[in-house]
Amino acid sequence: MNKYYIGIDLGGTFIKGGIVDSEGKLIILDKTPTEVDKGNEQICKNIAALSLSLIEKANVKKEDVVGIGMGAPGMIDSDTGIIICSENLFFENYPIAKKIEELTGLCVKVANDANVATLGEVKFGAAKNKENAIMLTLGTGVGGGMVCNGKLVEGNKSAGAELGHIVIAMGGEPCSCGRRGCAEAYASATALIRETKKVMSAHKDSKMWDIGSIDSVDGKTAFDYAEKDVYAKRVVDNYLYALATTIVNFANVFRPEAIILGGGVCAQGEGLTVPLQKIVNEEIYGQDLGPEVPIVIATLGNSAGVLGAAALIM
Amino acid sequence: MNKYYIGIDLGGTFIKGGIVDSEGKLIILDKTPTEVDKGNEQICKNIAALSLSLIEKANVKKEDVVGIGMGAPGMIDSDTGIIICSENLFFENYPIAKKIEELTGLCVKVANDANVATLGEVKFGAAKNKENAIMLTLGTGVGGGMVCNGKLVEGNKSAGAELGHIVIAMGGEPCSCGRRGCAEAYASATALIRETKKVMSAHKDSKMWDIGSIDSVDGKTAFDYAEKDVYAKRVVDNYLYALATTIVNFANVFRPEAIILGGGVCAQGEGLTVPLQKIVNEEIYGQDLGPEVPIVIATLGNSAGVLGAAALIM
Repeated sequence: MNKYYIGIDLGGTFIKGGIVDSEGKLIILDKTPTEVDKGNEQICKNIAALSLSLIEKANVKKEDVVGIGMGAPGMIDSDTGIIICSENLFFENYPIAKKIEELTGLCVKVANDANVATLGEVKFGAAKNKENAIMLTLGTGVGGGMVCNGKLVEGNKSAGAELGHIVIAMGGEPCSCGRRGCAEAYASATALIRETKKVMSAHKDSKMWDIGSIDSVDGKTAFDYAEKDVYAKRVVDNYLYALATTIVNFANVFRPEAIILGGGVCAQGEGLTVPLQKIVNEEIYGQDLGPEVPIVIATLGNSAGVLGAAALIM
Repeated sequence: MNKYYIGIDLGGTFIKGGIVDSEGKLIILDKTPTEVDKGNEQICKNIAALSLSLIEKANVKKEDVVGIGMGAPGMIDSDTGIIICSENLFFENYPIAKKIEELTGLCVKVANDANVATLGEVKFGAAKNKENAIMLTLGTGVGGGMVCNGKLVEGNKSAGAELGHIVIAMGGEPCSCGRRGCAEAYASATALIRETKKVMSAHKDSKMWDIGSIDSVDGKTAFDYAEKDVYAKRVVDNYLYALATTIVNFANVFRPEAIILGGGVCAQGEGLTVPLQKIVNEEIYGQDLGPEVPIVIATLGNSAGVLGAAALIM
């Protein structure tokens, strides 16, 4: 008998939902507005309505649906199903899993969305069939998640997995968390943009000025000009070295079967992974005495949230 | 019916062994010379003979013994029970678990000794009954281990948990692993001694010269003089800050229920844990929004190896 799993990706604007089978095949995908302005109760009603309509549209029996897995932003205690806080959605110590269980009659599990996306990539994406893998998401900040011995590692009250907040340069660049020198302050797209602008401001002869204004700088600028501009190359080299340092730190701690990179910076593809892999292979503890740690790019894209959420209840 | 577990701590000079009950009570403890010079086979015979003699001396029935857990130095694949390499014991790709199973008729599991000691402290010592805890051992190097979701996390081929080898200061002090700026190069007793000597050499007016010669410096010198000598205090403050930075990194990644400190530097007791806890509480991600991460000192001392080894097969 086939079993089905509902995955919900709760965002600030839309709630995305899907039904997934045991192999991770997405049977149906749909979305509905979150309606944050209408309050916590309405958000829960919208999640429940989306879940029940997915069952109807997919034409599966409710008794074959094992339950609902959900990823949500913020600090979430996944053992108790409570959102401790979630700035953009205005939840505070809210028992969201219990609420949605009451509204749907289905078993509900919830976890932080970065952890859920990692689980999705490990179960069904870039690190499929691996027991130990780490994901780093390189965007506005540096987020991520960890799967060890086949299970998501979230820490006490699920407050861990803040992978961007390891200091790699004591006393270095200020970080949003209040410390100095965190990986996030060097390896995020924000840091890449900051360093690109800094170098352009200092060097009016940089070819990167071809883009027109400094306000046009984005996470691609330095990569785009790296082969023709010495300043752009320096920004890229420094960025890659800081990111590789971060990756080697996690490789030495977890020795995962893969390190998955996600987020906007990954558009660079092999321009990112090839030089990173070289530094990582040289600097990893014991060099080639231990197993290699391949650096791979996330493959699930926007579906990682829904697929990972479904995997939460598998 | 009572079940018993044999724990073996394989060292370069002695093999220590004990029988432990399900509650972690040590029924009997004994040791025998390792006899490294007589080769791999003889070491295995000595381990087997010690194990069987423990059963006899403790007067327990062999059928009530679940098996033998063993901690050994070096790179060990605990899934296959093979010592990949172990410099001081001269094992190389040696199937030690299988050998000792053949010699004793008992089921055998083996893991790296630092990981095994961590498991001992988590099951029966400083972090008893915790599901998530990290141990850092501050000695010649910085070693350690991690227990997540109640299980030892060792990584692919058990090559992870190199907790001393995370860079906290890019481009900083050289480390034995070949990188620069690793935690080990700042938070080990070796680093503490190096910095103490450096400060004494630069400041002939330091009160630390009361110890006589620079060759008498050890991991206690700077702590002993911290209250009466400004140079000693600077060494201690810098040491504590680097160690706290390392601890906060692991706290943000794992958010464990405890971080256990072991090794010689821990003789400082609260002189170490109180200032560390203050920095950690200030710098941990989200400050007091998440659960506190208490810093505790290992309690099992020399028994951690035997107790942790027994816990491997529980």
